[in-house]
Amino acid sequence: MVLDRFLVLPLLLSLLFLSLATGLVQDFCVADLSKEDTPAGYPCKPVSEIGYCDFVFSGLATPGNTSNLIKAAVTPAFVSQFPAVNGLSISAARLDLAVGGVIPLHTHPRGSELLVVIEGNITAGLISSSNDVYVAKLHAGDTMIFPQGLLHFQINSGNSPVVAFVSLSSPDPGIQITALSLFSNNLPSEIVEAVTFLDDAEVKKLKKLLGGSG
Amino acid sequence: MVLDRFLVLPLLLSLLFLSLATGLVQDFCVADLSKEDTPAGYPCKPVSEIGYCDFVFSGLATPGNTSNLIKAAVTPAFVSQFPAVNGLSISAARLDLAVGGVIPLHTHPRGSELLVVIEGNITAGLISSSNDVYVAKLHAGDTMIFPQGLLHFQINSGNSPVVAFVSLSSPDPGIQITALSLFSNNLPSEIVEAVTFLDDAEVKKLKKLLGGSG
Amino acid sequence: MVLDRFLVLPLLLSLLFLSLATGLVQDFCVADLSKEDTPAGYPCKPVSEIGYCDFVFSGLATPGNTSNLIKAAVTPAFVSQFPAVNGLSISAARLDLAVGGVIPLHTHPRGSELLVVIEGNITAGLISSSNDVYVAKLHAGDTMIFPQGLLHFQINSGNSPVVAFVSLSSPDPGIQITALSLFSNNLPSEIVEAVTFLDDAEVKKLKKLLGGSG
Amino acid sequence: MVLDRFLVLPLLLSLLFLSLATGLVQDFCVADLSKEDTPAGYPCKPVSEIGYCDFVFSGLATPGNTSNLIKAAVTPAFVSQFPAVNGLSISAARLDLAVGGVIPLHTHPRGSELLVVIEGNITAGLISSSNDVYVAKLHAGDTMIFPQGLLHFQINSGNSPVVAFVSLSSPDPGIQITALSLFSNNLPSEIVEAVTFLDDAEVKKLKKLLGGSG
Amino acid sequence: MVLDRFLVLPLLLSLLFLSLATGLVQDFCVADLSKEDTPAGYPCKPVSEIGYCDFVFSGLATPGNTSNLIKAAVTPAFVSQFPAVNGLSISAARLDLAVGGVIPLHTHPRGSELLVVIEGNITAGLISSSNDVYVAKLHAGDTMIFPQGLLHFQINSGNSPVVAFVSLSSPDPGIQITALSLFSNNLPSEIVEAVTFLDDAEVKKLKKLLGGSG
Amino acid sequence: MVLDRFLVLPLLLSLLFLSLATGLVQDFCVADLSKEDTPAGYPCKPVSEIGYCDFVFSGLATPGNTSNLIKAAVTPAFVSQFPAVNGLSISAARLDLAVGGVIPLHTHPRGSELLVVIEGNITAGLISSSNDVYVAKLHAGDTMIFPQGLLHFQINSGNSPVVAFVSLSSPDPGIQITALSLFSNNLPSEIVEAVTFLDDAEVKKLKKLLGGSG
Repeated sequence: MVLDRFLVLPLLLSLLFLSLATGLVQDFCVADLSKEDTPAGYPCKPVSEIGYCDFVFSGLATPGNTSNLIKAAVTPAFVSQFPAVNGLSISAARLDLAVGGVIPLHTHPRGSELLVVIEGNITAGLISSSNDVYVAKLHAGDTMIFPQGLLHFQINSGNSPVVAFVSLSSPDPGIQITALSLFSNNLPSEIVEAVTFLDDAEVKKLKKLLGGSG
Repeated sequence: MVLDRFLVLPLLLSLLFLSLATGLVQDFCVADLSKEDTPAGYPCKPVSEIGYCDFVFSGLATPGNTSNLIKAAVTPAFVSQFPAVNGLSISAARLDLAVGGVIPLHTHPRGSELLVVIEGNITAGLISSSNDVYVAKLHAGDTMIFPQGLLHFQINSGNSPVVAFVSLSSPDPGIQITALSLFSNNLPSEIVEAVTFLDDAEVKKLKKLLGGSG
Repeated sequence: MVLDRFLVLPLLLSLLFLSLATGLVQDFCVADLSKEDTPAGYPCKPVSEIGYCDFVFSGLATPGNTSNLIKAAVTPAFVSQFPAVNGLSISAARLDLAVGGVIPLHTHPRGSELLVVIEGNITAGLISSSNDVYVAKLHAGDTMIFPQGLLHFQINSGNSPVVAFVSLSSPDPGIQITALSLFSNNLPSEIVEAVTFLDDAEVKKLKKLLGGSG
Repeated sequence: MVLDRFLVLPLLLSLLFLSLATGLVQDFCVADLSKEDTPAGYPCKPVSEIGYCDFVFSGLATPGNTSNLIKAAVTPAFVSQFPAVNGLSISAARLDLAVGGVIPLHTHPRGSELLVVIEGNITAGLISSSNDVYVAKLHAGDTMIFPQGLLHFQINSGNSPVVAFVSLSSPDPGIQITALSLFSNNLPSEIVEAVTFLDDAEVKKLKKLLGGSG
Repeated sequence: MVLDRFLVLPLLLSLLFLSLATGLVQDFCVADLSKEDTPAGYPCKPVSEIGYCDFVFSGLATPGNTSNLIKAAVTPAFVSQFPAVNGLSISAARLDLAVGGVIPLHTHPRGSELLVVIEGNITAGLISSSNDVYVAKLHAGDTMIFPQGLLHFQINSGNSPVVAFVSLSSPDPGIQITALSLFSNNLPSEIVEAVTFLDDAEVKKLKKLLGGSG
Repeated sequence: MVLDRFLVLPLLLSLLFLSLATGLVQDFCVADLSKEDTPAGYPCKPVSEIGYCDFVFSGLATPGNTSNLIKAAVTPAFVSQFPAVNGLSISAARLDLAVGGVIPLHTHPRGSELLVVIEGNITAGLISSSNDVYVAKLHAGDTMIFPQGLLHFQINSGNSPVVAFVSLSSPDPGIQITALSLFSNNLPSEIVEAVTFLDDAEVKKLKKLLGGSG
C-alpha cells in the first residue's frame, strides 16, 4: 500500500512538501559576538556560515593554571567563549583545584549550577538566604546542585588535584566572587566596612592583597 | 441598528454568551500558604473565598524598628506576607534607615530590585560580576535599579531618617545578606577564612557579633 | 594555613584566576534606544559606556501636571524613559491625583501592577474576567496588587492630593486606557457602538471630548 | 556490522538500556481539575489514567448558540474544558456569529490570539496602547493576530453566518469583555462614570441591559 | 460631578495626561526579516510603518498542493511567513491531505501543537517518551493536542480530502520530519543504520527515494 | 564609626533585622515525589526536612551496564532520580559506551543538551529541522551542544570505552529514542510504514527485535 507511492518521480515530488521546511527557521542561534548583545543574547550568525565546528568547544580539555593565590582555576564555556550556547539556557565550566586549592565564595547571578566531580575530593557548600549551611564531601562521580543565586564554594579537601565540570542554567550566568567584589575595586574602605561589619585593618589588608584601592 | 437588540429579554439572553466566562478561570492565584509550595508558587485559594482585602497589604504602612545593629529595617511584602503576589512576578518591601543606618551588602537570588526614595538621602551601590562599582547619591523621588542577583547596599547618607520602597521582579526574591551568610551560622571558621581570605580573628569576632558559631 | 598564600606576589597571581570573569558578561543590558527593539527589548549599550547615572532615574521626583481633564497624571519610568530596566522584568511609574482626580479604567497588557500609596487616600478597584469587582479604600503606606492584564482604576477619594508609586512586572508593560481606546481615535462610531452597546449620542459626545473622530 | 548485535537475546537486553526512560517523566500534565490550581496550572492526572481520549476535545464541533444579545457565541477549549492543554501554553476557542453578530470589545489578559476564518466574512479590529486602530476585513482562510492583552473585536460583516477558530498562547488566557466588566456587576454607577467619562443615564441603561446593579 | 470636567478645553487638556502613552511602547514587534535574528526573534519594524495588513495573513486560504509523495501539504504561517507573530509565542499552519494522504512522523522542537479538523477524517497519533502510543480518530470540529517536542503524525483515514488548521506555541516552532532527517541528507548510511537499527538495503532505498546520499 | 555599633547587645538586636529573612522563603524546592506533579514540577519537601544530602546525587558515580543491544547505557539524574533539581532548569546524565557502543538517535523534547567527554572518542551528530547534518569527532575534554528538541546521536568511535557527562536545560527533559518510539510499542505496522516510508518486512523485523507488536 505504501510502496506504490514510490513509483512516481520521488525526488521531485518530495521537494514539494519539503518546501515547508525551507526559509528562515531558527533551530539554533550561534552568537555573532561582533554584534550588540540584547537581553535575550546575541544576534545569530547566518545558518549558511554554521558548520559542525560551531557546536564543539575544546577549551575545557586543557587544565586551567592553578599557580595562583587560590591554587585553582575556573575555565568557562559561557556564550563569550562558546557562542553556540547563545539563547539555549545552558553553559559549562571546568574547575581545576590543586592540592589546597579553593574556589572562593561566589554566586551566579543568573543561574543554577550542577557540578560533577571527575577526579579528587571536594568539600562543597551552599548557604541559603535563611543562612542555613549545607556542606558536603564529594568524591569522583558525585553530583551536587547549587540553586539559583545562592552563595557557594568548593574546596579541594583531598591530597590530589581536583577536576570537575559544572553546567549552569544560562548561557551567561555570571560569576560574582564575594572577596573580589569587596576588595578588588575602588569601593571606599569606609563603605566596605559599613556594609560588611569588617574592620578597617582587615579591609585595607585585603584590598592590598586583591588589587583594590580606596 | 444596535438598539433593536436591546428590545429582547436582555438579561436572560446575555447570560447565554456569558457562559463562556464561567468555570475555572485563574485571573490570579492568591497563595494558600497552608499548602505545599511548588516551583511556581503556592496553590491558589478558591476564588469564592477571595475578597478585596486579599489584594491589599497594610504591613508596609508602619515604619520598621531601627533600634538594632544596623539602625535599619527591611519590611517585606513577599508572598509569605502578601499572598496575593503569588505567581505574579512582583513583590515589594519597605526600607527604614535611621541616621547612620545601613542595609548591609546583599543580593536577591531571584530578582531585580527597583528602589524609590520617599524621604531622606541614600548612598546606594551595586557591584557587577566584573567587580565594577556603581555608587550613587539618591534623593527623595529618585529611582535606582539593581539588576538580578548582583551585590548591592544602601546607606543613609543624610542627617534625617530614610524611607524607601523597593519592588522586586519575583513574588519570592529572597534576600541573602553577605555578612549573615558568613557569620550567623555554624559554617566552620576555617572554611569561612579559606573562601573569603579573611583572617581568623576577624571571622571569630564577627561570628560572635552576629550570632554564629564554629 | 590560609595566610601562607598571602606571601607570594598577590596581585599578579590573583589576576590569573580573575581572567575567568573578563570578556563579555551581561550583568545588565542598558537599552540603546537608538537601535531597533527586539521582542526581548533593546540592544545593550556597551558596558564601557555605562556609569552609575545609568542606573538612576530622577524623573519621578517631580509631581506630574494634574491641570487636565482627569485632574491626574501618570509619569512612567518604563524602558523608554529609564533604559536601565531593559530586560529586567520591572519598571515603575508615579501617580499624582489632585483632589477629585481619577486614573481612568485601564489595563497593562504585559504586566501586573503593585501600588504603594505615599500621600492621600485612594479608592482603587480591579475587575476580574468573571466580572467580579474588588474595590478597596487605601491610605498612606497601603499596598495593592492589580494582577496581569485586568481592568483597574484609582480615584482620589480624599480631600488632599494623592501621590503613589507603582511598579510593574515588565520593562514595557504598556497602559491601555479604555476611554481613550474607544474615543481618542478614528474607530468609526458605528463600530464602537456595536462592540460596546453604547448609544450613538454618547459615543459621539465622548469622541468630541477626547479628540476622536469618525 | 549492525546485524551481529541482533543475535543476542534482544528483548531482554534492550530492556536494560530502556530503564532510563521509565519512572516519573512528565511529557504532559493533563489537569486534575479536582485539585487546587497553582500559578503554573493544575496538578497532573497520573499517567496510568491517561488514554488517547484525554488528548481529544470534541466540544468545538458543535456551533454555539447565537440566539442572544450579541447574536454570537464563544465556545472555549481552555484548560477548564480541555484539561490536556494544562501547562502547554496553548488553547483554543470557536467563534460563531450569526448575521449581525458581534464579539464585543475584549482582551485576553494572559495571551495573544490567532484567528482563522472558516466561513463567512469578519470585520476585526485591534487597538494599541497608543490608541491606534487596526481594522481588517477577513474572508475564509484569512488569519489575523491579536497581540497579548490588547483590546480587539470581531463583527460579522457579511450576509451569512461566520465560523472561526482562535488559538491563544496560554492554557487559561481569560476573556475580559469591556461592556460586561463595566455593566454586569455591582460596581457603583458613580465610579463607572468617573473612570470612563460615560454619563449617568447611559451607565444606568447599560447596567439594566447587561444585568448589573448599583 | 463628572460632567463639570467636560467644560474646559477638553482636547488640549486631555493631551496632557495622554503624554504618558507616547514614546516607544512595544505592543507588538512585527519582524523585520531583513535584519539578523536573535534568540527572542527578529528586530521590530518601526511602528510608523505598521498597518492593519501586517496583522493579517492570507497564505492559509489556498489549499496546499497535495500532488506529491505524501499526498499532503503543510502550509506554515510561522514568523518567516507571517512576521506579526514575532515574539508572540504563537503561530499556525494549514494541513491538506488528499485521500490516502499522510503527514509523516515528526516533532516540533520548540512548541506544542493544537489541531482542529475542518473537513474530513483524520487518524492522528502521538508517542510519549515512555514509548506509549495515543492514537485517535478525529472528525470535523475535533481538536487534538500534541505536547511539546513529542513525535506525532496525521493520516487521512477517510474517503474525502482533509483540511485542518494547527496552531503552535511558538512563532518559530520548527518541523523535524523523521524520515527526512534520516534519508534526505548526506548522513552516511553506516551511521543511519547504527543509530536506528535499520538495515543497509532499507536505508539506501529510502535515501534514494527521499533525495539523500552517502 | 562602625565599631560603636558593636557595643550594644549584638545578638539580640541583630535578630530584629534578621526577622525579614525568616518565614517561608523558597531558595530551592526539593521535589516531594510522593505528591502529584504540576506543570512546573513537584511540590517541595519542607525546608525543615532538607539536609546537605538532598543536594548531592551519587548515582552517576557507577558506570552503567553496557551489556545490551546498544553496548551503551544512559544513567539519568533527572528530577525523578535527583529531586533537588526540581524547578531549577537543569539536570544531568552519564553516558557509558563500550567499544562499538551507540546512543541511538533521539531527542530531548524539553531541553538542550551539553555534553562533555571524559574518556574515549565519540562521533556525535545533530540534525537540524532543515535536515542539515552536523557530525563531529570528539575527544576527552571536548564539549558539544545539541540544541533544544533536535535529533542527535553519539557513537563510540574509538577502541576504548567512553565515559561522558551531559547536562540538560530542564529538570525533566525527557528522552525520546526514535527506534523505540517506532518499534517498542503496539503502534500498528501499517501506520509505522505509512508515516516513515519504511517497508513492512523491516518494520516487523524491528518490532520483533525491540519488543513491539502490531
